Amino acid sequence: MRAATYFFIWVDLALALFEEPALFPLPFLATSIAEVLCLAAFFGRLVHFAKVTPQTVFWKDTKNICVMVTIVLTLIDLIVYGSLEAANIHGVRWSRVLRPVFLINFPESRQIRRAFRSIRNTLPDILYVFFLFIFSMLIFSLMALKLFEDRGLKTVEGSPYFTNILDIAFELYVLVTTANSPDVMMPAYEFNWWYSLYFITYIIINTYIFMSVFLAVVYNNYRKHLKNEIRTLAYLKRHKMIEAFNILKVKVGTEFVVKEAQWRRLAKVVAPDISSSHLELLLRISDEGQKGFVDKTNFLRLADLLNIQVVTINIKRHPLEAWMPRVYQSYASLLVQKMVQHRTFVWVYDVIILINAIFIALDDKNPLISYAEWLFLSLYIVEVLLKLYTYEPRAYFGRKQFWNWFDTLIIIAALVATVANTTIQSARKYNSQQILDIVLILRILRLLRVIVSIQRFRVIVTTLINIGPMMLTFGSLVLVVYYVFAIIGMEVFQGKVHFFDPNSTSPDALACGNPALQNSAFAQGRYCRINFNNLAASLILLMELTVVNQWHILAEGFALVTHQAAKLYFIGFHVVVVILIVNIFIAFILEAFFVAYSLEKSEVETAIEKKIQELGVGVQEEEVQDGKLIDNVDTKDSGFSGDDGDSKKKALKGLYFRIASKRYKTVDALLQQMFESEIAPEDEGPSLEEILNFSPSDIHPKNPNFENSA
Amino acid sequence: MRAATYFFIWVDLALALFEEPALFPLPFLATSIAEVLCLAAFFGRLVHFAKVTPQTVFWKDTKNICVMVTIVLTLIDLIVYGSLEAANIHGVRWSRVLRPVFLINFPESRQIRRAFRSIRNTLPDILYVFFLFIFSMLIFSLMALKLFEDRGLKTVEGSPYFTNILDIAFELYVLVTTANSPDVMMPAYEFNWWYSLYFITYIIINTYIFMSVFLAVVYNNYRKHLKNEIRTLAYLKRHKMIEAFNILKVKVGTEFVVKEAQWRRLAKVVAPDISSSHLELLLRISDEGQKGFVDKTNFLRLADLLNIQVVTINIKRHPLEAWMPRVYQSYASLLVQKMVQHRTFVWVYDVIILINAIFIALDDKNPLISYAEWLFLSLYIVEVLLKLYTYEPRAYFGRKQFWNWFDTLIIIAALVATVANTTIQSARKYNSQQILDIVLILRILRLLRVIVSIQRFRVIVTTLINIGPMMLTFGSLVLVVYYVFAIIGMEVFQGKVHFFDPNSTSPDALACGNPALQNSAFAQGRYCRINFNNLAASLILLMELTVVNQWHILAEGFALVTHQAAKLYFIGFHVVVVILIVNIFIAFILEAFFVAYSLEKSEVETAIEKKIQELGVGVQEEEVQDGKLIDNVDTKDSGFSGDDGDSKKKALKGLYFRIASKRYKTVDALLQQMFESEIAPEDEGPSLEEILNFSPSDIHPKNPNFENSA
Repeated sequence: MRAATYFFIWVDLALALFEEPALFPLPFLATSIAEVLCLAAFFGRLVHFAKVTPQTVFWKDTKNICVMVTIVLTLIDLIVYGSLEAANIHGVRWSRVLRPVFLINFPESRQIRRAFRSIRNTLPDILYVFFLFIFSMLIFSLMALKLFEDRGLKTVEGSPYFTNILDIAFELYVLVTTANSPDVMMPAYEFNWWYSLYFITYIIINTYIFMSVFLAVVYNNYRKHLKNEIRTLAYLKRHKMIEAFNILKVKVGTEFVVKEAQWRRLAKVVAPDISSSHLELLLRISDEGQKGFVDKTNFLRLADLLNIQVVTINIKRHPLEAWMPRVYQSYASLLVQKMVQHRTFVWVYDVIILINAIFIALDDKNPLISYAEWLFLSLYIVEVLLKLYTYEPRAYFGRKQFWNWFDTLIIIAALVATVANTTIQSARKYNSQQILDIVLILRILRLLRVIVSIQRFRVIVTTLINIGPMMLTFGSLVLVVYYVFAIIGMEVFQGKVHFFDPNSTSPDALACGNPALQNSAFAQGRYCRINFNNLAASLILLMELTVVNQWHILAEGFALVTHQAAKLYFIGFHVVVVILIVNIFIAFILEAFFVAYSLEKSEVETAIEKKIQELGVGVQEEEVQDGKLIDNVDTKDSGFSGDDGDSKKKALKGLYFRIASKRYKTVDALLQQMFESEIAPEDEGPSLEEILNFSPSDIHPKNPNFENSA
Repeated sequence: MRAATYFFIWVDLALALFEEPALFPLPFLATSIAEVLCLAAFFGRLVHFAKVTPQTVFWKDTKNICVMVTIVLTLIDLIVYGSLEAANIHGVRWSRVLRPVFLINFPESRQIRRAFRSIRNTLPDILYVFFLFIFSMLIFSLMALKLFEDRGLKTVEGSPYFTNILDIAFELYVLVTTANSPDVMMPAYEFNWWYSLYFITYIIINTYIFMSVFLAVVYNNYRKHLKNEIRTLAYLKRHKMIEAFNILKVKVGTEFVVKEAQWRRLAKVVAPDISSSHLELLLRISDEGQKGFVDKTNFLRLADLLNIQVVTINIKRHPLEAWMPRVYQSYASLLVQKMVQHRTFVWVYDVIILINAIFIALDDKNPLISYAEWLFLSLYIVEVLLKLYTYEPRAYFGRKQFWNWFDTLIIIAALVATVANTTIQSARKYNSQQILDIVLILRILRLLRVIVSIQRFRVIVTTLINIGPMMLTFGSLVLVVYYVFAIIGMEVFQGKVHFFDPNSTSPDALACGNPALQNSAFAQGRYCRINFNNLAASLILLMELTVVNQWHILAEGFALVTHQAAKLYFIGFHVVVVILIVNIFIAFILEAFFVAYSLEKSEVETAIEKKIQELGVGVQEEEVQDGKLIDNVDTKDSGFSGDDGDSKKKALKGLYFRIASKRYKTVDALLQQMFESEIAPEDEGPSLEEILNFSPSDIHPKNPNFENSA
């Protein structure tokens, strides 16, 4: 059901690729039928939803109303546009702007709604700063007008310099984005160096201070709302766990508890694929005194216990050792193993990768170098084989051994790429451009292996990878905004600028096919392909606008082919995307890194770790990663088998646990954990009603201290 | 002494203005004599310093060694350069680069050293990220080389596109700064839109993610070091207060205390200009039970108590009321006062300012408009007079009434400007350019008055003004870096590029006087005046490089007139200034705003406020600002005089206190307060030795909680 909804949402969004102005043109009939199908699917989904939820709840939910209104509006638009088209009148398909509504308002996209809510809540605060910023800009515009209007200065292009208040305001807005930085100053600076002070003051106040204040406001609000969301989640969890406890509780002595059998059954229901040894471990932690029941405090921790990823390391002998113990334990074999485990082994391969990089940079048409290619590849394969010989293969490719997987996949990709490359080069007729490009990129990506061997690089990269899931939410947010702007842009600017083949000799090519662009900076910069003539081109254009540089030339170009008011579209895009969304992105990366920097083990985790150590079945993460696992296990094993005959311990024999590195956790999970450590174990939390209506302004630090702010 | 040192430091730094390449040329003899004088002053200062401090301490201090070595090096350089000059050989005055050493290493510039230390401590963390970033850039360069080298593409200028790995690496570094954003992509994009994905990936990874990570690392370190500094300060203060207590303590009963008379004398010594009524108030707070002595806990708060700015409002009657009570209290007069105090009065004047803005924007050669100018001015003066009529003038121009001062000064400036303008326009012969410009700017600045009447704007502006003192430190830091880069730049690039008058018809003007620049983007952009030919021009150039846009064109220009390796200078500047220093600036503004947002009253302040309220002599800040002071005082006064005859209270009669708004505090002070609230009152703190050797890594959050990180 969920997948189907997403499928239809994406189909609906993708329709813009096939409608006029199309990347892959399809007749209106085809796209409109597809759209009606999508609408039907959304409507069906809504009807189903209305059946499962009570009437009052359903009609109160703005999500459902929104979707319904959008479906109706889209249908009206389709009919109107279709009939106009039949009468050969060109209409505007305005309802396409509404398509992202479906993406935002379906129940599954809670994260995107959260992001939009957070933006909406930031608006009042940001608006005041924005007004002050605009005010400052206008004051500076007035000054510029008074200072320069009567000087008769000319810009590099020969047009009058700073004579019109609207032009000045636009130029100064562009200066805030730094896009016209020295150029806008040059005529005044050439006239008198004294005037550079005016521009430097402007840049310090508006570009540096105001833009930082925008970031501060966005970041502050982001934190406030993040904290609120996290608090709601933490209390909700607590609330549900208490409910569960109240259902399962039995009175033993003076206190209510949950029986061990009940607990076991519950854990199995909640986490069906948990291994029995793992479950045993958790029970040992929850039922400290082995009394046969779990008390309330420990029961409330169940969710956290299940969330902590404990890696079960099933220590087995190396298959080769089992198969031919004599050979594997021989002196030569042990020497090889020692060698592979040594640090120098890693360094030698780092040097090999470096030399490989130099060879790639050199001309690969030289036959000697293309032979060297095979040499490097075989060296890498030998490395993997040696590692598999030394380490137990199932441990090496364990579920959480991200870097081993990464390393091996890169080598396989390089192998495939080199083989493909040779095949393509020998069979010249299949010289497909894109496959060749992918092969080239795959060959170079092998250099990423260097990251694996430098610990500090690994830390940075894992932090970045952890951000991944939240980045997806962010990506959808950007997509929604881009899509809306792209649709509007295509309606307004399609076909105004044409791209001619670079080899074209047509005189129009120099003016992008539009005489209005003759001698404009847009045409001189050969930006003709940056246009709104289809969805892909529009998205690339918007990406360029996000990067900001030269955006004023693009804005000026599209203003020339339509009207000066078109600049408002570009300014609007800058305000929404660069001032709001990019700042949220930066706030988000900052937060993720701060959380990663202040990583500490949570209370629950420490309890588990202590238990693991107590039972003597722990393995340090570093040992596994440094390849010392085998050595370590050997010594432990010998100590272990000589232990007393505790039945529980025997059940765990041959098994080792360790807590999966916190580095593999998402920022969300970390934050939630941190917040939970603030809730006292006895705290039952507020009522469900209250929890759902938390607002960020409720959070007042009771006693402000250094930590709160610095 | 201190002023003299600063004077010589500035003279020494300013010498660069007069030395070759000079803004104001002076013979070598004159500048070298000035420099020797400065060196003598520094040396004298050092000798004096060596006399007061113990030998071992003096020789251990790296500051002193640094200054001494710099003096010697500078002298050697001067002699060598002088003799070479005498023999007509051109030497390099390399020791000029060392001049900022004097600014950094004199004892008074503790703040700047702190900033440099903070940067140095950030380096290791940032270096790893930087290496990873460079690594990623090189991987992308290799990819670009393989993807594009054989395509035979051409850039807009017609040069081959992406064929040399060094050029590609430079172009991609520039792309990280976004300065060549769409241009670098265009040839590939024109060839196949598919290649835009390569550039978009590059921008997302390197421009967005890595640059945010740089900010995160810098910010995180900034916070860590800030916290450490603040902690050291807080403990040092505590330590000194305990020492003072131990000297002054007397045993009364079972506990050690300080007698009231001692306390009073101490307070008078520490803060000689404290008013006796203020001192009385503090004593009432410290000696809660009026027992005649102050106990240890209260004694330790003395410094905080003295630091809290209590505004003593000496309520007096309006002078006019005293002079002619009948008239001032008449119905008409009271009506005027009510009117001025009304909100509408503010709004009416906001509208007037708005209309004034429109008039300024219009042509001021129209006689009607220049008459209107006088009308507006008289309206503003009437406003000030009305306010002075309504509010007690000494209260209105109180020491902390920042906005009243601001408002009045702007009106006076506008008055002066308009008078000056008229004078200049009537006596045309004195038509001095710069005075006219200043007058123009002053006239426009009056529009800033709008800020005063919008509360939210005032809050933002006061936060920015509070940052002021710390901004000065930051400014010195920037100055040091700019100075060093400017001196190096002048030595390397002076005279390579010439600026010709805009009206010059010389054919060299088009190539900035250097044939190597013929047809370069540098000359076409008419950037000739952006050069290293004197200190002022160099600083402006460096400012333009800080703004980043078009920096690659400047770099390319200076590389053309010297050597391609010159680009390293520009890349180095970008790394140091934009990646390090601008990020510190942003971190600093973020922190200041977060502190401002989490403003809460400190414990000590609350105690004072409570006492003030208890004594019934409090006035709310809002009342003063909203102009309700008079009304409020009237009612309070009547209640107060009817009070019982407590002698202490009588002494305070007619006096009102309020705590100066927190908004007038510096961020440093706020942070210190917050940290102190974490030290328990009984905590004696670590030993002095330990305090001075605190390192940021000592701070481990004991129980990490949400506040620590989110």
